[in-house]
Amino acid sequence: MSNPTDLTRLEKLTALIRHYILTASTAAGSGHPTSSLSAVELMTALLFGGIFRYDLDNPQFPNNDRLIFSKGHATPLFYSLWVAAGKLTGEYFEANYRKFGSPLEGHPSVTFPYVEAATGSLGQGLSVGVGLAINARYLDMLPYRTYVLLGDSEMAEGSVWEAMELAAHYKLDNLVGIGDINRLGQRGETMYGWDIQSYVNRVWAFGWETIPVDGHSLQEVLAAYEKALTVKGKPVMILAKTIKGKGISFIEDKNGWHGKALNQEECDRALGELGDVDLNIRGEMARPENKTPEVPPSVPVASFDYPPDKKVATRKAYGNALARLGPANLNIVSIDGEVSNSTMAEIFGKACPDRFFEMYIAEQNMADVGLGLATRGKIPFASTFAAFWCRAFDQIRMAQYSEPNLKFVGSHAGVSIGYDGPSQMGLEDLAMFRALGDSVVVYPADAVATERLVEEMVKHRGIAYMRTTREATPILYSPDDQFPLGGCKVLRHSQKDRATVVGAGITLFEALAAYDTLQKMGIAIRVIDLYSIKPIAAATLADAAQATGTILTVEDHYPAGGIGEAVMSALAAKAVPVYSLAVTKKPKSGSPEELLNYEDISREAIVKKVREILGL
Amino acid sequence: MSNPTDLTRLEKLTALIRHYILTASTAAGSGHPTSSLSAVELMTALLFGGIFRYDLDNPQFPNNDRLIFSKGHATPLFYSLWVAAGKLTGEYFEANYRKFGSPLEGHPSVTFPYVEAATGSLGQGLSVGVGLAINARYLDMLPYRTYVLLGDSEMAEGSVWEAMELAAHYKLDNLVGIGDINRLGQRGETMYGWDIQSYVNRVWAFGWETIPVDGHSLQEVLAAYEKALTVKGKPVMILAKTIKGKGISFIEDKNGWHGKALNQEECDRALGELGDVDLNIRGEMARPENKTPEVPPSVPVASFDYPPDKKVATRKAYGNALARLGPANLNIVSIDGEVSNSTMAEIFGKACPDRFFEMYIAEQNMADVGLGLATRGKIPFASTFAAFWCRAFDQIRMAQYSEPNLKFVGSHAGVSIGYDGPSQMGLEDLAMFRALGDSVVVYPADAVATERLVEEMVKHRGIAYMRTTREATPILYSPDDQFPLGGCKVLRHSQKDRATVVGAGITLFEALAAYDTLQKMGIAIRVIDLYSIKPIAAATLADAAQATGTILTVEDHYPAGGIGEAVMSALAAKAVPVYSLAVTKKPKSGSPEELLNYEDISREAIVKKVREILGL
Repeated sequence: MSNPTDLTRLEKLTALIRHYILTASTAAGSGHPTSSLSAVELMTALLFGGIFRYDLDNPQFPNNDRLIFSKGHATPLFYSLWVAAGKLTGEYFEANYRKFGSPLEGHPSVTFPYVEAATGSLGQGLSVGVGLAINARYLDMLPYRTYVLLGDSEMAEGSVWEAMELAAHYKLDNLVGIGDINRLGQRGETMYGWDIQSYVNRVWAFGWETIPVDGHSLQEVLAAYEKALTVKGKPVMILAKTIKGKGISFIEDKNGWHGKALNQEECDRALGELGDVDLNIRGEMARPENKTPEVPPSVPVASFDYPPDKKVATRKAYGNALARLGPANLNIVSIDGEVSNSTMAEIFGKACPDRFFEMYIAEQNMADVGLGLATRGKIPFASTFAAFWCRAFDQIRMAQYSEPNLKFVGSHAGVSIGYDGPSQMGLEDLAMFRALGDSVVVYPADAVATERLVEEMVKHRGIAYMRTTREATPILYSPDDQFPLGGCKVLRHSQKDRATVVGAGITLFEALAAYDTLQKMGIAIRVIDLYSIKPIAAATLADAAQATGTILTVEDHYPAGGIGEAVMSALAAKAVPVYSLAVTKKPKSGSPEELLNYEDISREAIVKKVREILGL
Repeated sequence: MSNPTDLTRLEKLTALIRHYILTASTAAGSGHPTSSLSAVELMTALLFGGIFRYDLDNPQFPNNDRLIFSKGHATPLFYSLWVAAGKLTGEYFEANYRKFGSPLEGHPSVTFPYVEAATGSLGQGLSVGVGLAINARYLDMLPYRTYVLLGDSEMAEGSVWEAMELAAHYKLDNLVGIGDINRLGQRGETMYGWDIQSYVNRVWAFGWETIPVDGHSLQEVLAAYEKALTVKGKPVMILAKTIKGKGISFIEDKNGWHGKALNQEECDRALGELGDVDLNIRGEMARPENKTPEVPPSVPVASFDYPPDKKVATRKAYGNALARLGPANLNIVSIDGEVSNSTMAEIFGKACPDRFFEMYIAEQNMADVGLGLATRGKIPFASTFAAFWCRAFDQIRMAQYSEPNLKFVGSHAGVSIGYDGPSQMGLEDLAMFRALGDSVVVYPADAVATERLVEEMVKHRGIAYMRTTREATPILYSPDDQFPLGGCKVLRHSQKDRATVVGAGITLFEALAAYDTLQKMGIAIRVIDLYSIKPIAAATLADAAQATGTILTVEDHYPAGGIGEAVMSALAAKAVPVYSLAVTKKPKSGSPEELLNYEDISREAIVKKVREILGL
């Protein structure tokens, strides 16, 4: 590819791309032109130098190479590339960049069809790329390659190094990182400046092939990509020394120009420096191969059965359910953070070993690997302790903007895990997953509900979270019971109910025991299993509130953002009193019973609170 | 130190420590004996080999060396060390380990006086250590050293590599990491097994001195510590090849023994293998130096003034406030995630450069550096975009269990940041910080409230979070106004109020504008500035609800766990209708006004909703 004529053409494309980087950000009045200018040659050579294989008319074509801008703020460059590819006019870009309602948002949004995943919170793109590359190599068995453009500032994020180690572990030679080492971060120099060798050392030590280059030499950059294609058995990182603001003398390598558009006068001056630019030239992309993903035969969904007299932990039922559904739905993939013998994802891992990927103790990377798999049509179930999903909250938050079909499972919820103490107790997970703009949150109490809710999670397209319990719990339901999302189960009710107790998971059994005690005292209560926390059965709750006069929620979770507040939100406009019992003291080691009592979320606490509410 | 007699004594201590590791975990019926046994020589040599300097009668003595068990599950070892030091009897340990109410919890808790910080969520201890070492070197100027014991599994966490890079950047030669490379994680082999060279390569590449050793040779381990003391200008990591379960033949290097106590029969067999153990031997620790922290002179608190007719962003007022208070309170320290020109922490950085530490884009490490500083009596203010605190939620969650005096500040809250789009918008931060068991959450609307609330954060001992706004907002208050935590400001009220609108931050100004519009329509509303979201002014809200009949909350945040639910929680038992306006559509790029309108949290949306509630 890199003969002189081609290089001249690529050079002309870089001028066109620089032109629109400048004009569109100036037209918008904001954006990141300098961070874009440093990577122009890197991206031009990749996309239009014969390396990147892509069907421009079919962004979802399974054989397309994949490109992730982990440095998501470089959208002036990103959109300019699609102008150069002929899929966007320069005028449209200039008129619509960062405008309300436009697909050309400040950071990449999936509204724009050439965006694989929303980025903008730094240090996440490489993990998404690991997901894409795992899919190509181990699942779809397709020859597409994944390219990830990283900024140097974001390489300070630990998540980048999680992606590094996992990519090397899985020998992802179909993954190419491109480090745009332009020395300057938002407010000054990065930790390593232009010490390219320090990047080479670190990336090499993490098991990658490294190729240092002058990031503004099209010839060197092209040679690097060509070399990358030949590397076997490990991922490749091109580490490019670049200049922030490259090409425009008065902003080149200058601090204070991060995230700033040029004003019109500066822009005119900058365009003058670019000289004559051929705005009609367009680049060509190489064509992808046309292979079909391998699809092994599937089998019908098996049924399940739990003896009604044996206790089963919902985490175990989760593993059973996934293993049961896996052979029938070949898109189901399980990833786990080195605790599969606790989350019980190992049951799936044994049933479908080709679709189980150990993610080790690196939850941030795991979440984005899940996102990457989801963008290629898989249905990833990512699991760890509920508490440790906090580790990946930023990745989870960002994932929602890619609108993925992605499932999270958190085991060891609440103080009822017992002796290990608060570091291992998920007490914020419901708040975290409820906080997502569009999410489903389920919390089964028994094995049957778990099995059915895993089925619902598979059926529902979107982000869904299941909370499971460490301790074995009794079987409450029969396999014929249905558990639609947004539903609940009214387990005890009578005409004489004087209060409604809403439990879920472990506290449901406390509520049922409290029912028995209160019954003996002549006090009838309604008991609801709120297995679906989001969406929530607002109508049933409102009916219960009206019929019984008051609601008491009981949860093994901190109060903020939990079940109590979910119920209050559902009933807020109804002027119904809602009381709640939740974890309010700093938890400690102890038996589950001791801790439920200590936190006043036990059967005794419920009995006491109901009597107090009723003035007894 | 390492003459033959001393080594014999240390060997006897290792036998005693192994004894109690086994007996106490067996007595508890749970715990992690095998993960403890691998690090016995590493810790015995450190504490009792003349390296570690510590005043056993004064754990808070500023000159004490500091020890963090980042592999927090190794508490059988940790407590055994204090038995060996004579500060705990073996009988007490056996009788109380993991018992409800005991300080000897399953993972280290600050209830036990020799614990510097609660650990147990992996990969966090090294960052705490960086905070301790920064304090020693740059703030207190004390010669104490910080030692951090890490497991090999947890080195998969990106946060560990964040700590690595920052420790090297700050040339922390007073920090020593000890990697216990025992090959086995919870459910099988780690990514790197016993490939010690792969650890050496990576740690070296991150700028550390590395010392590989046989972790069971007391002589080698002692020599490593002695060498570590001589290294200048960079931190040191001892990388020890060890055996999980070391010393007990039937659990040595065996998978399936993670987090499992031996039963009594196995324990007896194991004790038999230990042979004769001198349970009366005790180790001696070296004495620390006796230096006093350097305390530069402080100055009185300056006053402040904002012209009432000029708009000021609360993020800027935050920087002003911190710079104003800094010279008067020498414990105030600012750490920032490479966005100090956005959070405006740079104002403090310029005023008090010796107490500002650039943490680069590595929020997880930043949170724990803050924790480390807090444990040494500093009042760290850690700042980044509100959205990016999600990155450190697990560190923040864990920090609460150390009960630190630690402040977080999140700028660029909500959709009102505008053009950059959702990746940069903090829309879950209130839920996240409210979810902590014991936290303060404040959200000032103007510069004056910001100044006063920063003062309140300094005065309050505990975790506090301030949310600031990107856009400049009008001045509402005078410097004489007070902003106690748990208070609110009733800004508009009359006898005729028919509804109460509760805003905070940016939405308060929308509420005030809606007041004017409704006023012209003849509809009186009460307007409350809920600057303190936790604790919350429940009584004032209840009064307003009763007086006006209904409450409408308006927030630039997702509904779950935000201001609406905080108000509902405060009023839940009151049977008052609470309506809420919050961000419910996927945000996008646009102007602040376009986005407030799009999300129905603008003045127009408030007017419309109030009229709807009133049936108009």
